[in-house]
Amino acid sequence: MSLATTFGVLGGDRRQLYLAQSLAGDGYPVYTSCLGEGSPPGCLGSLPPVELAARCGILLLPLPASRNGVLNAPLAPAPIPLDEDFVRLLLGKRVYGGMLSPLRAASPLWEQVTAWDYYTREELLLGNAFLTAEGAVGLAIHEYEGSLGGSRCLVTGFGRIGKALCAALKGLGAQVDCCARKPRDFTVLRALGCQPLAYGRLEQPYDVIFNTVPAPVLTAQALSRQRWGTLLLELASPPGGIDREAARRFGLRVIDAPGLPGRLAPKSAGELIKEAVYAMMEEA
Amino acid sequence: MSLATTFGVLGGDRRQLYLAQSLAGDGYPVYTSCLGEGSPPGCLGSLPPVELAARCGILLLPLPASRNGVLNAPLAPAPIPLDEDFVRLLLGKRVYGGMLSPLRAASPLWEQVTAWDYYTREELLLGNAFLTAEGAVGLAIHEYEGSLGGSRCLVTGFGRIGKALCAALKGLGAQVDCCARKPRDFTVLRALGCQPLAYGRLEQPYDVIFNTVPAPVLTAQALSRQRWGTLLLELASPPGGIDREAARRFGLRVIDAPGLPGRLAPKSAGELIKEAVYAMMEEA
Amino acid sequence: MSLATTFGVLGGDRRQLYLAQSLAGDGYPVYTSCLGEGSPPGCLGSLPPVELAARCGILLLPLPASRNGVLNAPLAPAPIPLDEDFVRLLLGKRVYGGMLSPLRAASPLWEQVTAWDYYTREELLLGNAFLTAEGAVGLAIHEYEGSLGGSRCLVTGFGRIGKALCAALKGLGAQVDCCARKPRDFTVLRALGCQPLAYGRLEQPYDVIFNTVPAPVLTAQALSRQRWGTLLLELASPPGGIDREAARRFGLRVIDAPGLPGRLAPKSAGELIKEAVYAMMEEA
Amino acid sequence: MSLATTFGVLGGDRRQLYLAQSLAGDGYPVYTSCLGEGSPPGCLGSLPPVELAARCGILLLPLPASRNGVLNAPLAPAPIPLDEDFVRLLLGKRVYGGMLSPLRAASPLWEQVTAWDYYTREELLLGNAFLTAEGAVGLAIHEYEGSLGGSRCLVTGFGRIGKALCAALKGLGAQVDCCARKPRDFTVLRALGCQPLAYGRLEQPYDVIFNTVPAPVLTAQALSRQRWGTLLLELASPPGGIDREAARRFGLRVIDAPGLPGRLAPKSAGELIKEAVYAMMEEA
Repeated sequence: MSLATTFGVLGGDRRQLYLAQSLAGDGYPVYTSCLGEGSPPGCLGSLPPVELAARCGILLLPLPASRNGVLNAPLAPAPIPLDEDFVRLLLGKRVYGGMLSPLRAASPLWEQVTAWDYYTREELLLGNAFLTAEGAVGLAIHEYEGSLGGSRCLVTGFGRIGKALCAALKGLGAQVDCCARKPRDFTVLRALGCQPLAYGRLEQPYDVIFNTVPAPVLTAQALSRQRWGTLLLELASPPGGIDREAARRFGLRVIDAPGLPGRLAPKSAGELIKEAVYAMMEEA
Repeated sequence: MSLATTFGVLGGDRRQLYLAQSLAGDGYPVYTSCLGEGSPPGCLGSLPPVELAARCGILLLPLPASRNGVLNAPLAPAPIPLDEDFVRLLLGKRVYGGMLSPLRAASPLWEQVTAWDYYTREELLLGNAFLTAEGAVGLAIHEYEGSLGGSRCLVTGFGRIGKALCAALKGLGAQVDCCARKPRDFTVLRALGCQPLAYGRLEQPYDVIFNTVPAPVLTAQALSRQRWGTLLLELASPPGGIDREAARRFGLRVIDAPGLPGRLAPKSAGELIKEAVYAMMEEA
Repeated sequence: MSLATTFGVLGGDRRQLYLAQSLAGDGYPVYTSCLGEGSPPGCLGSLPPVELAARCGILLLPLPASRNGVLNAPLAPAPIPLDEDFVRLLLGKRVYGGMLSPLRAASPLWEQVTAWDYYTREELLLGNAFLTAEGAVGLAIHEYEGSLGGSRCLVTGFGRIGKALCAALKGLGAQVDCCARKPRDFTVLRALGCQPLAYGRLEQPYDVIFNTVPAPVLTAQALSRQRWGTLLLELASPPGGIDREAARRFGLRVIDAPGLPGRLAPKSAGELIKEAVYAMMEEA
Repeated sequence: MSLATTFGVLGGDRRQLYLAQSLAGDGYPVYTSCLGEGSPPGCLGSLPPVELAARCGILLLPLPASRNGVLNAPLAPAPIPLDEDFVRLLLGKRVYGGMLSPLRAASPLWEQVTAWDYYTREELLLGNAFLTAEGAVGLAIHEYEGSLGGSRCLVTGFGRIGKALCAALKGLGAQVDCCARKPRDFTVLRALGCQPLAYGRLEQPYDVIFNTVPAPVLTAQALSRQRWGTLLLELASPPGGIDREAARRFGLRVIDAPGLPGRLAPKSAGELIKEAVYAMMEEA
């Protein structure tokens, strides 16, 4: 068993458990750390971070790698500080993690770490967008008191998530309008049988509104014609795109839906990370 | 306000609350009973059963009308016995309810009640099938750790629910196989891009299996090649079609999913009941 | 080679050529007659009707079996009369054909023929409906000067063909309205994201109208608001459902589209006939 | 009527007739030239090029603007040379055309022409891709002897046309494999329920193969396992991506399908040009 091809999965949530299991399923030796007591099927065991670093040539950090200034490791018994001791564990390793900038900013020692950020890979971002869209559909099925089939839905934004969401909602029989800006998005939306709208006041009432835009697009004026009780799902990162105060005033129901891939499809999310890491290893 | 066109909605769950609200939205006078303390927007108020009967010419019972020998009224403070006193409330009224046979069997007084069973209406059965299929999709999105898009799903049965489910799963990007019996179902499945299978041992492993058949089709032998942890959703009425003991032995994960329309889409389910009652009133 | 399991394919068009080829591909001995000079790959040859009858225990007649009083055999060098000589060829054989009633009415000798009409099989009717729908889509792509994606289409009737057509048009990104009568059809159409309409005057202008109803539903009044040049495809059997005189007056463009399965998908249509015959043989 | 806002549509095919009609429908004064004898409804008339230039401040050239060294004007009575006299007509005008490079190369006078190439606009390229995909589907429905529903299709390339084509084929019930190169394309294809393949030998036989790649991807080796008679549609510009000699040797049936938007959806193609020109005018 070569150190150079032994993976250490350090921190994270259920996605990382599936990531470790999937790497092991491909035949690699894999250890986990800070991921709960046991280790997924096929893995070699769970180790403290120092021992993990001693045995593994490739270290996989979670997505995002840090949360509130410590390692993103909700399954660990105690917070793991991202101090210089931590960074020293990574020296001489090949390190892959998601959203590494905050870590890099925290210590100049990072300059000596050989690290890649997998959250820059288009295939991972696209795959996550599909998982987010499917999760949003699942959430809407649970939270909306009617059925999506035959309902009238609005999606704001026609980026990665908006595209996947429009297709999924159409696939379930919803009527889909979508707010977009670019002429090219209007063209595609029309061809798909969705109605493109400019941003601004929504003239029609909707059954469910999905916001994917991390900018204030669903303002008080935009929302003023929506009916009491209308469901809004906030899919964009905080502070999102919905005027919460106005929504409360109009009696609209806003549900925050962050991190859907990790919550509703950890297996697929973990496998997407694996594919991205493999692709980066091949290119390196 | 004429007694003859005043609706009394008696018992039931959130579907009946939406049913009452929707009737009121169409302009009818509506009272509720045994549906919690308040009354939905637009309704005239909540009354005890005796007073409801005094003021309403049309009485709507829930779906199913009875459960465990009493009125199906989970929101009522106490069980409502379906005794002769109850039946007397219905005399001289136009009564609509779902699955009335058990009530009718309980008392000969029913012969004098003018009652229709709305659960015989094809449009309601079909509509409920679509709600069940969408609910099953929502459940699978939550319970399956991967994503339905790109997954391999099996549906058993190509009746009302099976048809709606195959279409919804395809619409989300799943690969769908379906067990069916009739040559005509094989023809349609092929045309839709689903793979039709005869019942018997499943040769391929699936990610999610949806059973819609109320007969033992997913036997130990049928399930013997499925992988540990595979998700099975039981959509058929008890005892369903899955050999539970075998599923446990193979490490499969079975989730019971009864009553999805009422749980996940009470608004649409209530409106379907309203449409069925309207159609029966027109025909009567 | 047993006479009892030797197939003779007698008359018909390209569907029957594919039928013969497909039977041969399944390992059966197959002769053809009145289907052009050669014989499809795998078949044993082309024979005159009398010799065909001498060598084959199973005779397959076309769909429809007769046209204009003679055998439906456009590839034959001369018309084949359906006289008593013809019927005598069938005596003692197992005969399968489509729409046999006109033949049966023509001679009392038919009472002695052992014949089955495969055009009564639901799987064949359903399969043909899918072929018709796909053919209608192909025709509309060629004849409509715009694109179906993003267009506004009307389908009249929600029977076998209407159902398949609504699904196919939605699949290409069209907005689909559908005229129907039954409450159950309204329910399903809504769930699929199509707008159900009652018959009567069409209030919206459409880009393409597909008629599947063999009764006068697209009357002058119904069509009065359609725009000059609007395309109408007549899919129902003559006289169809479109008021031709009114359509001409309003400048609408009507295209007759009979027999689409045979014209645009003869291979699949032939295989559907084979499947139906096999199923009837098993049941007999 | 201001010269500055008067459109002259010069040369082209039915797309330009619809373009002129659509501009007129928006209220602009429009003349046509070299587009047949008449002029579409709402236009002011057909003029010779010199008079057109005298009356119009905005000149719209076709897509492509030139063909075989002359103006692309199949409806003109005689070829229009693209000589210096022609270029002089454009001086002082706002000129919009498609694929202008060959014209620009032909005369230094072009440096004084104020011209924009609308075939660089992403919304037009995307819209054309959807029209091409739909046209390819229509062509396949006509040319393939089976039905696309339930068939096995291969698409090569997952660019604009490949994406639209995969979605349309799935929408009609086909099973779709797609050759692609980028990891991100594999991710999206899987999420959509299509099977992604690397380029190379095709191991499975297909019913219809759609090539969208203008590079030799369907080589003799790639095609060696395809069945006699398999249909291949060449959608890429010449010389396309199919080894014609090999295809002939294997008995495959290759159909060239260039210019589908103009041939099968001239109305939508003309409107896409109009939208692109409007967007360029706003930005200028």
